[in-house]
Amino acid sequence: MEIKSNYKEEAPEAIMWSQKAWALLSTVRSQSPLIQCITNFVSMDLMANTLLSAGASPAMLHTLEELPDFTPQIHALCVNVGTLSAGWLPAMKLAAELAHKSGKPWVLDPVAAGASSFRLKACLELVELKPTVIRGNGSEIIALAKGSVEPTKGVDSSHESTDAVESAKSLAQASGAIVAVSGAVDIVTDGKRVVGAHNGVAMMTKITATGCSVTALIAAFISVDQSHVLEATASALSVFGIAGEMGMKMANGPASLRMHLIDSLYGIDEACVFSHAKITSLS
Amino acid sequence: MEIKSNYKEEAPEAIMWSQKAWALLSTVRSQSPLIQCITNFVSMDLMANTLLSAGASPAMLHTLEELPDFTPQIHALCVNVGTLSAGWLPAMKLAAELAHKSGKPWVLDPVAAGASSFRLKACLELVELKPTVIRGNGSEIIALAKGSVEPTKGVDSSHESTDAVESAKSLAQASGAIVAVSGAVDIVTDGKRVVGAHNGVAMMTKITATGCSVTALIAAFISVDQSHVLEATASALSVFGIAGEMGMKMANGPASLRMHLIDSLYGIDEACVFSHAKITSLS
Amino acid sequence: MEIKSNYKEEAPEAIMWSQKAWALLSTVRSQSPLIQCITNFVSMDLMANTLLSAGASPAMLHTLEELPDFTPQIHALCVNVGTLSAGWLPAMKLAAELAHKSGKPWVLDPVAAGASSFRLKACLELVELKPTVIRGNGSEIIALAKGSVEPTKGVDSSHESTDAVESAKSLAQASGAIVAVSGAVDIVTDGKRVVGAHNGVAMMTKITATGCSVTALIAAFISVDQSHVLEATASALSVFGIAGEMGMKMANGPASLRMHLIDSLYGIDEACVFSHAKITSLS
Repeated sequence: MEIKSNYKEEAPEAIMWSQKAWALLSTVRSQSPLIQCITNFVSMDLMANTLLSAGASPAMLHTLEELPDFTPQIHALCVNVGTLSAGWLPAMKLAAELAHKSGKPWVLDPVAAGASSFRLKACLELVELKPTVIRGNGSEIIALAKGSVEPTKGVDSSHESTDAVESAKSLAQASGAIVAVSGAVDIVTDGKRVVGAHNGVAMMTKITATGCSVTALIAAFISVDQSHVLEATASALSVFGIAGEMGMKMANGPASLRMHLIDSLYGIDEACVFSHAKITSLS
Repeated sequence: MEIKSNYKEEAPEAIMWSQKAWALLSTVRSQSPLIQCITNFVSMDLMANTLLSAGASPAMLHTLEELPDFTPQIHALCVNVGTLSAGWLPAMKLAAELAHKSGKPWVLDPVAAGASSFRLKACLELVELKPTVIRGNGSEIIALAKGSVEPTKGVDSSHESTDAVESAKSLAQASGAIVAVSGAVDIVTDGKRVVGAHNGVAMMTKITATGCSVTALIAAFISVDQSHVLEATASALSVFGIAGEMGMKMANGPASLRMHLIDSLYGIDEACVFSHAKITSLS
Repeated sequence: MEIKSNYKEEAPEAIMWSQKAWALLSTVRSQSPLIQCITNFVSMDLMANTLLSAGASPAMLHTLEELPDFTPQIHALCVNVGTLSAGWLPAMKLAAELAHKSGKPWVLDPVAAGASSFRLKACLELVELKPTVIRGNGSEIIALAKGSVEPTKGVDSSHESTDAVESAKSLAQASGAIVAVSGAVDIVTDGKRVVGAHNGVAMMTKITATGCSVTALIAAFISVDQSHVLEATASALSVFGIAGEMGMKMANGPASLRMHLIDSLYGIDEACVFSHAKITSLS
């Protein structure tokens, strides 16, 4: 009797992606990169716990005066405009500039980019500061790509990620960033290649700050492999989605899913990544 | 053998209330109203998750510059002064004015209204801006009705809701708002009618931000039926209390109750509302 | 057959400490002291829930204008500089001064003290305002004692608590505060005596804001026994650690540990304190 390896049955691309995702998670766990987060008030708790559970070291510092001392020491920066205000924007910009100058990657989460002209302008100014990755939902990426304010569902998307592929590609080309669009399928593109991460469960959209938190996880993943940003971004999206799938098996609703997701992210092992990761080339 | 319907055994008033509460929750789930929350830092996470679990779409935007674009698009506004500061107050006022002008209902949560003269003055100024509903604990409603600063237990109440009925009625008459007082029995009044919502469990007071969160739920409920604000307010209080009762069956303490409460709010069905809802006319 | 009492087998010192810890927790539960917290955005939720679960009454008020009315009414103050900004610092200082003037104890949590010169200066200025207790991790206490900015792991410590004993002693002597250093063993010193609290589990470092939260618990404990601050500090550290140990028995990862920890803190009884508390004199 022959025992077939699960690995061998899979397409070489699938194996490559699983290996990549597992290698990156393992490196985050062993190196514990320091991730500075300038983020909204709603997400701070879940974002910090997401980073800790993945093995990274979060630091929620947002004060202009201390950025010149602090930001050059970090491994990556996550900027999220969720509860944006005029007072916080200069620190977001300075941190982005300092990260860029120090050769540290940084990720932009343009929450509700199209909800107001103030917010859209702020997001477009941040895009000018050379984010390594931009991750949003369909509506946010479309608003950024078009540069236009639109009727909005607030922070929730009124577009599927797949509706935003062309917008994501043009935003990637215009900005030089890798662009990720969250949705039932998470899309990642450098403007030419398009990769899909097919993990996660629908109930994750019923937990606040899951999108914000996966953006921070992307920052952690790209901090340990700056030469493969697209791959690291897709891997972070997939790993977070896998944690959601594992958590869903034990969940009775959004609050228990949130708990089990974080527990699962902490406990996820190689076998789990290989059996669950679904990352594919879409073009 | 005759199987008696639970419904038929109940008084017509109880059936009416259960039907009302279930109809409103169902409408929130199907319409997913956009609820803007300008709230304190402590409650943002639980409030957003409460709204999501109930089927609404929360948006925590508090910046003056974007309110003219954003607030006219919402379905209801929730203003909570918990971590009040001079910097946030103008946005609270502008958002209230914009909501009022756009015909959108808004709810005021006057957290710790009597804790300082600064806070009391801010709350009284907000009351002038025509909130649709004011929800507080006994001490807060008494402080607002009297317009006086008093020795305080901070954000916790030193008065039972039933001690505050007369204050609630006079505040309702003076302000034109529906006034709700949380407590062992939740009181709702338009200044004449007084209704009691008898759901919930004592341990909910050991979870931070449950009061804040039910205020946001009230905003969601009144957004889908603006012509029955008193009924929608009592229904939201009852539904949140029912979720607490269901959660309590599985809880081992305040933190697991918090989780099970949100899971229960997500999963609550018609039978559950009809078997648990206890709303009665008190006068 | 003789049944030996667990109590009798223990050294008199261990029994004394268990009695102390249990007496303080019981007093917090019965008196429900009002604890004002001026803390970082990340920790507000867990800190408030920690205080509620221990029986205290938290109030997250940070606004300069209302401190003169409010702070004299509290039982203790907790100041945490985690998400420090120039805007919040004056309120931290005024609250500390008002607490000191009113004879109310206050506790300083110098989060990431050495991460920037701005932050270090702010922390040193706060130390000048006579905190009753300073609680930090090894790196923070060393930075404060030396008064120097150092390469940092952000908010996480790169030093064990035991590396910081001499720094803690000199900081205690210079400031007049009781100094506590969290770590695998929690250290508490008045500059001469050194006591170790040996409770807690390693996974607690994977939950954001556990350090912040135990600082608030220290504030609650010292508020009910101002004449034994060292003992109350060690007791709070031990009780929080015990809750972590109890929670760990039911946890599958950091998020479920967080939940079970708070549930356990709420439910902890005398037998549990006596069987788990491990506080010893280290010198």
